[in-house]
Amino acid sequence: MNPVDLTLYLVLDPDLCGGLENMVQTARSAAQNGATVVQLRAPDQKKRWWLDAAQQLKAALDPLGVPLIINDHIDIALAVDAAGVHVGQSDLPPAAVRQLIGPHKILGLSTSNAAQLAAVPLDLVDYIGVGPVYPTGTKLDASPVIGLDEFAQLMRAKTLPAVAIGGIKHGTAAPLIAAGVEGVAVVSAICGQADPALATRQLLNEITGARS
Amino acid sequence: MNPVDLTLYLVLDPDLCGGLENMVQTARSAAQNGATVVQLRAPDQKKRWWLDAAQQLKAALDPLGVPLIINDHIDIALAVDAAGVHVGQSDLPPAAVRQLIGPHKILGLSTSNAAQLAAVPLDLVDYIGVGPVYPTGTKLDASPVIGLDEFAQLMRAKTLPAVAIGGIKHGTAAPLIAAGVEGVAVVSAICGQADPALATRQLLNEITGARS
Repeated sequence: MNPVDLTLYLVLDPDLCGGLENMVQTARSAAQNGATVVQLRAPDQKKRWWLDAAQQLKAALDPLGVPLIINDHIDIALAVDAAGVHVGQSDLPPAAVRQLIGPHKILGLSTSNAAQLAAVPLDLVDYIGVGPVYPTGTKLDASPVIGLDEFAQLMRAKTLPAVAIGGIKHGTAAPLIAAGVEGVAVVSAICGQADPALATRQLLNEITGARS
Repeated sequence: MNPVDLTLYLVLDPDLCGGLENMVQTARSAAQNGATVVQLRAPDQKKRWWLDAAQQLKAALDPLGVPLIINDHIDIALAVDAAGVHVGQSDLPPAAVRQLIGPHKILGLSTSNAAQLAAVPLDLVDYIGVGPVYPTGTKLDASPVIGLDEFAQLMRAKTLPAVAIGGIKHGTAAPLIAAGVEGVAVVSAICGQADPALATRQLLNEITGARS
């Protein structure tokens, strides 16, 4: 089990961030203001872009002690020695991923319902993503919205640390924390915001407030 | 330098082949009838599909002694222990690929012009693809067509084994062999043909005839 602080999990979208340079700046700013983990997710980009982007993000985040997680592409994670990887149900299965990355990198897995949550291999995966909790326009191939009631049920059933994802903004994070999730993941609530640093601090305040 | 017989290089397209099952059957049939190397190229597919497809192809090709090359996704090549990988100019650069795959897997690199050909790192790459030599509808983001005259110039300049690609069909392979290329790569000339075995034998006959 590789520990990871899921409190405020930024998922970067290069388009929403306004390109590579702005994306790296957004990641740095968020990490400086309380984001505890940063994931790069860019399904439309080619691998040469990925390598460049991941190297720049790692250089920005390593000095801040914030882990960089690579979505889907294990080869990129290995090439830049990222802290971990995150995969969905249609990506490489956890067993294949763990064999490629070894025991010491963080492995996250997306889940959308009770069946997927029950099927998570607990000896291979370090944390789960659970979503979409709210309607979202960021991920076009997202699963059906879970909603707060079912989310609370999933939180009672889970046996791994979890991060909620999907349409979470300032003002909608607190009920998820109250339901027992370790942290929340956001995309557009930070990427493309006029002041990503402020947006990060507001989200963090809401999360820590909901915990106390 | 890892040796690879480029004589007749099949690039699989799952859509043109009519799905995964037909694709595996096409690969087996082509390998039984003279294809010397098989590449899986499927930019639209998710990694879980890729893993399944690559495992099935490897199981079909290994007994025939025909190497399986994985396009773009080094993680898939590592997961199934494929014979090699092929990357384009927008994919991971050869140095990053070689570091991931080690010294013993085949590494191919696509080139489209004299500048790209001159920039190939000879100590890292085992063979080059050169194309598109003819107009092609298979690869939508293909570079400008090279044509026979410029292709012959590239063949005189090259210092690595090469395979021609792009719109090659039975009847248009011979001039490329005559220009000095080691082999030809085809997609639609085998994938989706009514009789892939026959199509393979006809192409092989043309190539070997042009060599003698």
